[in-house]
Amino acid sequence: MKQLLSLIERIATRVNVNLEEFGFDVGPFINASANLANMLDYYASYAVTSQHPLRLQFSNSNIAASYFLGKCIVNRSVVYKSDVRGDELKRKGEAIVFGSKELPLVEDEVIIIRDSFLFRTLIHSKSHNLETPEEFFIRNTVAGHFSNIHGATMEGCYIGVFATVDHMSLHSCIIGEFSYVQAEELFHRAIKPGTVWIANDAFSFQYTYPEEVLKRYVAMDEAWKPVGLLIDFVESRKTDFERLFEQVNMDALDTPQSSTVNRFALIKGKTRIGKNVLICQRAYLENAEMGVGSNAQENTYIIDSTLSGYNVTAHGAKIIHSTLGEKIFVAFNCFLNGKTEARIEIGAGCIIMPHTIIDAVEPITIPANRLVWGFIGSQQDLQTNSIALDDLAKQTEVALGNMTFHGDGHAFVEAFRKRFEHILELNGAYYAKGRNRGHAQSDQSASFNMIQPYRTGPNRGIYPTITIEP
Amino acid sequence: MKQLLSLIERIATRVNVNLEEFGFDVGPFINASANLANMLDYYASYAVTSQHPLRLQFSNSNIAASYFLGKCIVNRSVVYKSDVRGDELKRKGEAIVFGSKELPLVEDEVIIIRDSFLFRTLIHSKSHNLETPEEFFIRNTVAGHFSNIHGATMEGCYIGVFATVDHMSLHSCIIGEFSYVQAEELFHRAIKPGTVWIANDAFSFQYTYPEEVLKRYVAMDEAWKPVGLLIDFVESRKTDFERLFEQVNMDALDTPQSSTVNRFALIKGKTRIGKNVLICQRAYLENAEMGVGSNAQENTYIIDSTLSGYNVTAHGAKIIHSTLGEKIFVAFNCFLNGKTEARIEIGAGCIIMPHTIIDAVEPITIPANRLVWGFIGSQQDLQTNSIALDDLAKQTEVALGNMTFHGDGHAFVEAFRKRFEHILELNGAYYAKGRNRGHAQSDQSASFNMIQPYRTGPNRGIYPTITIEP
Repeated sequence: MKQLLSLIERIATRVNVNLEEFGFDVGPFINASANLANMLDYYASYAVTSQHPLRLQFSNSNIAASYFLGKCIVNRSVVYKSDVRGDELKRKGEAIVFGSKELPLVEDEVIIIRDSFLFRTLIHSKSHNLETPEEFFIRNTVAGHFSNIHGATMEGCYIGVFATVDHMSLHSCIIGEFSYVQAEELFHRAIKPGTVWIANDAFSFQYTYPEEVLKRYVAMDEAWKPVGLLIDFVESRKTDFERLFEQVNMDALDTPQSSTVNRFALIKGKTRIGKNVLICQRAYLENAEMGVGSNAQENTYIIDSTLSGYNVTAHGAKIIHSTLGEKIFVAFNCFLNGKTEARIEIGAGCIIMPHTIIDAVEPITIPANRLVWGFIGSQQDLQTNSIALDDLAKQTEVALGNMTFHGDGHAFVEAFRKRFEHILELNGAYYAKGRNRGHAQSDQSASFNMIQPYRTGPNRGIYPTITIEP
Repeated sequence: MKQLLSLIERIATRVNVNLEEFGFDVGPFINASANLANMLDYYASYAVTSQHPLRLQFSNSNIAASYFLGKCIVNRSVVYKSDVRGDELKRKGEAIVFGSKELPLVEDEVIIIRDSFLFRTLIHSKSHNLETPEEFFIRNTVAGHFSNIHGATMEGCYIGVFATVDHMSLHSCIIGEFSYVQAEELFHRAIKPGTVWIANDAFSFQYTYPEEVLKRYVAMDEAWKPVGLLIDFVESRKTDFERLFEQVNMDALDTPQSSTVNRFALIKGKTRIGKNVLICQRAYLENAEMGVGSNAQENTYIIDSTLSGYNVTAHGAKIIHSTLGEKIFVAFNCFLNGKTEARIEIGAGCIIMPHTIIDAVEPITIPANRLVWGFIGSQQDLQTNSIALDDLAKQTEVALGNMTFHGDGHAFVEAFRKRFEHILELNGAYYAKGRNRGHAQSDQSASFNMIQPYRTGPNRGIYPTITIEP
């Protein structure tokens, strides 16, 4: 185990050097959160399909968990329960367009994780860093539980628990708990917990959670352990997943041919899977009605809820006692916490912004085609935390509650709508008669391979060096 | 699946070129025996420990089965259910002694399998080919069901069903069904089915099964499918093994700390495992009493039997309704078929020669310290099929029934006794207080890793290229 302990210590030192200006030490967080017993006991798995370019390499690492689809190199890192789903990586021959220039890719893009400790972190999408288009890198970085690293390259960063960094590059940054940032490129910045911030040349959107609200849902206690209702919610359902990892092959579910239910997704109660549906690894479905073309991405929970069709449930989103019309985008880490007596009804075409919390104390109904953000406890709260998309599209300045918006409202709404449609396309929601194939169709035939670390000796907990190629 | 089919065809052609002088075609055998459905569906597994040098590489192959311990490279081959247990390979720094010369090894020995189709074949021990001491190779070879390739390098060979080639080199040879050969080096030879032949500079031992007896136990039918009682015995117990492959981790058995029960061994009924016991992959134990220091190697069956202690049950041996005293060597592929009313009792210190069949129609008692060979159906048969070891040690010529022996009887007996003790040592039978560690102690901490072939596309059934190193 000596090697594993020195690996962890080395990573902490490297991250601390990058964050020295903030006087920040990742050591206490790592020490409070690293579950060495699990890191030693778990096995890792990787998926192979004939649809995705294959190149996986792990060395001097503990990768005690999950599935890698697409090219990925992991070196001197702990990738504790990550999905690292590289099935959207750019491929050789594609051209990156920036302004009037075209940059053709000479090789397939590869995810490279080095000297990093990623607790339960998904890495998905592709690098949006134009400077290294073939290399989606994460270096000298620590990422907390249920954070989402999504199309974001990073070096020398600490990403807090339940934080998301999306389609951007970060250098020597601290992202606070439950913050969502999509801001092109950041250098040496510390982002306050509970910040939802989207900024580019055309517009900026910002919302900050009131401290007393945020700490009920996510906070770090004095011992640097994550606490709060979101942690409790996830932790209380953790053991349900265990049986998925005890069997080699799961019994096939009764799902349409055009849909994929990942073998490590948990399906409970009366759950119905419609056509062109994608259910990813570590998704948790209980009494869920999944309409045609809807999806449940990694770490999502859909409980006692109906998704009418063409709904996107982005990584880490939770939908409970809710009814959703068609074409609703529930973005990263949303917590739609309806109750039996206080259901949440959302009209068609709504965009629920990343990291939105709707914790209903009474039934809440959201009309169609609205943008929704921040903290909502009652129907009343919608007045300061939502706006009709058509209204926003006409504005250049909006200030509502804790939210401020500047810039081109039309461009903002179109960007979200375009992204939503793009996700549906990528996921195969529009598949018909062999056309518009996406993840729901391409990931069906994944075979899962299980690899284990050394069980004894000084390398205990470290995996042998393994290379998988076509 | 196109790649897999052309791989199989290519292997057949290469072997046929080597065996052209015999007018032999392996094609019909391969076509009759290859179970494509299994080759497409199965997963492979490999074991990793901190005790054995690690380097595994598979490319352009189907390795639909088993465990590799030690260094192994597989290329353009089908290794269908093989164990390929390289835990006795020579290591860097060891010296090979031949005559007065010493040959120091400059690197670890590695098993190299190329352009071969090995049906359910174990490859174990280390190469006894002095010419390539660091390379234990199997090239252009087809090996049938339940054959044992044991410390034997080969090129251009066909090894029949239930045949064994032991501690030797073979070039362009055909070894008939159920033949056992240990004859240093053979070139362009065809060995008749049912031959047991041990030959070196000091002695030669030969026994040939009567044709009408042999065909009851092992034969090839007109469609080139293996038939007979031995096949029926093994096939009827095949499904019992399936559950072992459906779970990731098996419940731990109640076994002494100094013993190893492989996670893919099948344990049924009232079975008791003593100290320093080694139970290998695909061993089948039912109501078996395994005394201290005894072992059950790959593909063995021990049913309703007692092994008193320090017993070796070599690869493929079957012991049913039998009681064995201490220090008995039951060699490769023996079939000791006792019955409830016709038990087999074997006295201490006996050597049951490879490929011996005792199919008891009445109770059979074998006194201590005898060499036993060939076919035995009754107590009477022992007169022509056994000899006291001390008697043989004094002779230079023996002819008994179908057996002939020439040469140094003492050297022959000592060679077997020495080998028997060496196996006990290697297996850890004499382990005590941290000393005399062997497989029973070193293989305990193996972690099993599971890998799967492509499930769709032209490469269906072929495994991705995979390299595992420390």
